[in-house]
Amino acid sequence: TNSIPAGFEIRRIESRDYAGVTTALSGLTTVGDLSQSQFDDILAYWDTQLLPGRTDGARSYNTSVIIESATGRVSAVGTVFVEKKLIHAGGLVGHIEDIAVNPDFRGKQLGKVLINHLSAQGASLGCYKVILDCDEKNVGFYEKCGYSRAGVEMQVRM
Amino acid sequence: TNSIPAGFEIRRIESRDYAGVTTALSGLTTVGDLSQSQFDDILAYWDTQLLPGRTDGARSYNTSVIIESATGRVSAVGTVFVEKKLIHAGGLVGHIEDIAVNPDFRGKQLGKVLINHLSAQGASLGCYKVILDCDEKNVGFYEKCGYSRAGVEMQVRM
Ligand SMILES: CC(=O)N[C@@H]1[C@@H](O)[C@H](O)[C@@H](COP(=O)(O)O)O[C@@H]1O
Ligand SMILES: CC(=O)N[C@@H]1[C@@H](O)[C@H](O)[C@@H](COP(=O)(O)O)O[C@@H]1O
Repeated sequence: TNSIPAGFEIRRIESRDYAGVTTALSGLTTVGDLSQSQFDDILAYWDTQLLPGRTDGARSYNTSVIIESATGRVSAVGTVFVEKKLIHAGGLVGHIEDIAVNPDFRGKQLGKVLINHLSAQGASLGCYKVILDCDEKNVGFYEKCGYSRAGVEMQVRM
Repeated sequence: TNSIPAGFEIRRIESRDYAGVTTALSGLTTVGDLSQSQFDDILAYWDTQLLPGRTDGARSYNTSVIIESATGRVSAVGTVFVEKKLIHAGGLVGHIEDIAVNPDFRGKQLGKVLINHLSAQGASLGCYKVILDCDEKNVGFYEKCGYSRAGVEMQVRM
């Protein structure tokens, strides 16, 4: 179940994914009023954020979509964001964020395929670890993806 | 206890903080072999990473040190990193990272002063929330800083 099912493909997010991505994300949390042009501006910003000291154009923000090939529909979306630290000799940490699977595409293991893809991307970018925060009810899913409990997420909301 | 104690000041990290910052961080985790010049390169990289669509030069990586004014010694260090998202109408999330207090300066509430500073910085940069991951044993400290439990941190190590 690590490989993408027949009829689906995975690639970096693009402008034409606007409707499908905002729909999928609205199953995770509040998306709010996000226009196509704001969406495009964020993708353009993400494209400019490069990791330091490399010549391969490796980026900090890596957002992928799983697309149903026949229709072009967005079935899942997620990000691995790479943070540059001082610790671990100037190490990199991958943060998996904003994972959403469109309910129409449940039961195809697309969530697991997406997490495996983002984790592998974090590894290939040189991260010493990849982390994420989730609800207690999703711990079992992430364990099946190779993750273990590491700590407590704390928040303050503005 | 929200204000900085007499004899201390707080400011953005600088090149001359190398020894004090690496010493403080080695109390948190592995720092490894990090030379002065690698340290400087990371600070220079952090300086280049700007938030999108603003004219105030607001940065993604905001690392602060608390300095003992009389000696210039680093008593504490920590970061609030700002992530640009699609959700929450293109919202910003602050990630507090790599908090360390030099053991010589314990008992002065510097940890709380630092967290309050970083949280306020996240708010003033426009974050809709600030989050962090910590050990179960530090939950009480972060609660005193105004944080609440939000979820489970999961990790995979490479
Ligand atoms: C693994 C995963 O997808 N975790 C997400 C996180 O990335 C997202 O940003 C947050 C939004 O919640 P919020 O709307 O309360 O900020 O929910 C979950 O923690
Ligand atoms: C609030 C705070 O300071 N949390 C830190 C985190 O920022 C740091 O990066 C990590 C290092 O641990 P590691 O060496 O196992 O990656 O420890 C803690 O989770």
